[in-house]
Amino acid sequence: MPDEKSLHMTPEEFRRHGHTVVDWIADYYARIESLPVLSQAKPGQIRGSLPPEPPESGESFDTILHDVEKLILPGITHWQSPNFFAFFPGNASGPAILGDLLSSGLGVQGMLWVTSPACTELETHVLDWLVKMLDLPQQFLSSSTGGGVIQDTASSASLCALLAARERATNFVSNQRGCDGKLVAYTSAQAHSSIEKDVQIAGLGRENLRMIAVDKNFAMRSDVLARQIDQDREAGLVPCFVCATVGTTSSNAIDPVPEIGRICREQKLWLHVDAAMSGTARLCPEFRHIHQGLEYADSYCFNPHKWMFTNFDCDCFYVADRKALIQTLSVLPEYLRNQATESGAVIDYRDWQIPLGRRFRSLKLWFVIRHYGVEGLRYHVRRHVELAQQFADWVRKDDRFELAARVPLNLVCFRHKGGDEVNQRLMERLNASGDLYLTHTRLDDRLTLRLCVGQTNTMARHVERAWKRIREEAEQEK
Amino acid sequence: MPDEKSLHMTPEEFRRHGHTVVDWIADYYARIESLPVLSQAKPGQIRGSLPPEPPESGESFDTILHDVEKLILPGITHWQSPNFFAFFPGNASGPAILGDLLSSGLGVQGMLWVTSPACTELETHVLDWLVKMLDLPQQFLSSSTGGGVIQDTASSASLCALLAARERATNFVSNQRGCDGKLVAYTSAQAHSSIEKDVQIAGLGRENLRMIAVDKNFAMRSDVLARQIDQDREAGLVPCFVCATVGTTSSNAIDPVPEIGRICREQKLWLHVDAAMSGTARLCPEFRHIHQGLEYADSYCFNPHKWMFTNFDCDCFYVADRKALIQTLSVLPEYLRNQATESGAVIDYRDWQIPLGRRFRSLKLWFVIRHYGVEGLRYHVRRHVELAQQFADWVRKDDRFELAARVPLNLVCFRHKGGDEVNQRLMERLNASGDLYLTHTRLDDRLTLRLCVGQTNTMARHVERAWKRIREEAEQEK
Repeated sequence: MPDEKSLHMTPEEFRRHGHTVVDWIADYYARIESLPVLSQAKPGQIRGSLPPEPPESGESFDTILHDVEKLILPGITHWQSPNFFAFFPGNASGPAILGDLLSSGLGVQGMLWVTSPACTELETHVLDWLVKMLDLPQQFLSSSTGGGVIQDTASSASLCALLAARERATNFVSNQRGCDGKLVAYTSAQAHSSIEKDVQIAGLGRENLRMIAVDKNFAMRSDVLARQIDQDREAGLVPCFVCATVGTTSSNAIDPVPEIGRICREQKLWLHVDAAMSGTARLCPEFRHIHQGLEYADSYCFNPHKWMFTNFDCDCFYVADRKALIQTLSVLPEYLRNQATESGAVIDYRDWQIPLGRRFRSLKLWFVIRHYGVEGLRYHVRRHVELAQQFADWVRKDDRFELAARVPLNLVCFRHKGGDEVNQRLMERLNASGDLYLTHTRLDDRLTLRLCVGQTNTMARHVERAWKRIREEAEQEK
Repeated sequence: MPDEKSLHMTPEEFRRHGHTVVDWIADYYARIESLPVLSQAKPGQIRGSLPPEPPESGESFDTILHDVEKLILPGITHWQSPNFFAFFPGNASGPAILGDLLSSGLGVQGMLWVTSPACTELETHVLDWLVKMLDLPQQFLSSSTGGGVIQDTASSASLCALLAARERATNFVSNQRGCDGKLVAYTSAQAHSSIEKDVQIAGLGRENLRMIAVDKNFAMRSDVLARQIDQDREAGLVPCFVCATVGTTSSNAIDPVPEIGRICREQKLWLHVDAAMSGTARLCPEFRHIHQGLEYADSYCFNPHKWMFTNFDCDCFYVADRKALIQTLSVLPEYLRNQATESGAVIDYRDWQIPLGRRFRSLKLWFVIRHYGVEGLRYHVRRHVELAQQFADWVRKDDRFELAARVPLNLVCFRHKGGDEVNQRLMERLNASGDLYLTHTRLDDRLTLRLCVGQTNTMARHVERAWKRIREEAEQEK
């Protein structure tokens, strides 16, 4: 059989086109502030510019890249713009992007140790590093009873936690016989919507999720939690899972984890702590108080892809008892059996997550930690918090505005005192201007603007300009 | 506030280091055949070479990249080697890697249309293209009642399908009240392990998954399926979901989708068709028969990250009725509300998947389709099938070996006639040699070797050499 033609890029072609793409990205970051942060595209506009039929023959790489610039860029909302203050950030950095590029290039699968030992071992290693870097409880170390794993998102992490909780509470019978509608989960009324989605997915049912009332700071009321658990037990239900949030999406509220933890310990409930964005702050000793009570947690997660300069996806999920997680999620067919697995000497991360396949995601995290060093990461996190605190001060001092919640870290919830309509108009005009992008929430049933300082390249001048633009728009409301 | 120091890579530093990483990858592909396919690392070896403590200060990029070569590479199993024949492939290509690099560089979130319109619209567009390219049923088009979405893996796709099936069967009551242990799901005894995992996750319970017996070709017996459904109904249970497989992982068996589909239609069960690897073959008209009966499917998935030159992760998941899926997975908190969503004019893909966050994955798929063109993709898929058929012929003609299953496409299941121990030794010696990597399964309760031709750069000479090495090792068994 003679060798055949190939339409694949040769290594030399890859080198040439790769340099071009790298240059495009470098130029993109150099000019990003000149682009409107929020895409100004209308529904259907991007699709309308694309050919309805796929190409029969291959096209040149230059043509494709040209179309990225011409057809795709107008539909991009620039999450990597330093003027992006919306939602929670999804920040990236040079070392992360290049670590991720290597992961794409190597193209290995990390579902089993044997399918690429370095993929598993580097992940375990870096997640152990992070236990030290964030001063997390020792039980989350792989050398202890627990360990860490990279998930795609905090939603998936909390789902895994809920499933392990479900199984522990039913002595692993739910996996066998299915749910019986009696298991109950708890979180605060301000928790992330993913918890609601999780209880639906896991078969508990939304009616069996108790959204516990919050105090004036939007943090879960542990007394209400305790009372609700008692009531549920009296009603013959089976409480199994509590999700506490350290830094809610709505307002960055911090649930009282020590009190919640003591209740969970006493009641034998699984405690999951979701610190998706705010966990990164724990790099800095002065912010570690946000994590008080973490020693009670059965599981914990935070997202380097939010605020630790590691591009999506990268959620670090820890459990105190890995056996419970593995027993919940492990299914071993013949075609995945291998000596390393049977020896018990290795970790197979497929048993720590919902999907089977997994990418080499620890590379980018390793690159980030090594590029910045722990001190470098601390420096930039501190700067973001300082900038947010400065912004909060400006709000406090301006009679037209008020803060709508405490500002523990880098998220400022504030509003114009003129009411919902004024705030809605302010937000729409600011976002339509392309100068910055911020989003909203409702607190105390009032429309509230959220400004989150966490994009990698956000510096003082960007926050100063945001405030200037907000005041300018407020002027127009007179 | 004066501007401050920055430890981030500047665009110029990114350009320089980016070129170096691209060069590293180009060189990696140029030398990949000189590396042992299966990593020869021992458990703990890679971790043992890494410093126990994270660095306090930042390190140079060159140092980090040097460590990739020195510390990580020995722990890599080379999925991108043309001598990789194990499991199912996880193939990549130049255009995919570079599309993925752009996605990392842009760093946008596609959870909502508004968070980056191009991310949503390009995805819808490319998935509509694929409906045409694979000649899939019209109901999977976004302009019809259904539509496609990119998931991370086929496991997640089948989980979403199962959840929608669960809700449709209970009139969306399970989401509210939880599962009641009466819902039943069906798949073949040869289906992927993810289905078992899915029924556990979704709260149905493993006991409520019927692993339907297979025929001599390892395909689901539709008569047994029909009988089992009747029995379950008589027992007061509620059948809701059938997963048929087009190309099982174990042996590439193809379930009789037309017969299964008619049963599902009659019985009002959700039919999910999992064509994770083999779906790609449908690019070629001569292989479309594998998908007969797909018009009955409520959902379908195939993985361009297996056999369509698109690096992980990229599973294309289609539903015929998107409303059922969205109603199952949608939860809308205040902080995600926006005008575009409320208008109903846009797709928010967060409601089509388990996690909230999502990467711009359609870029790489778009790059692949445009680089190769439909004809180019067909050409390479055909070559892989030809090479596998050639290999199967060689096996047939060698008295020492036998085929263990039909070879419909690119997976050859075969064994030495000497029995399990001989086959085990053959496989271990071949894999330890580093010359190639293949894995095993059990068929008819006998150890069976699997050789799957699907790595992007696998050409005739690699398959020829694999067969030569297999015969050499067989010589030693005399």
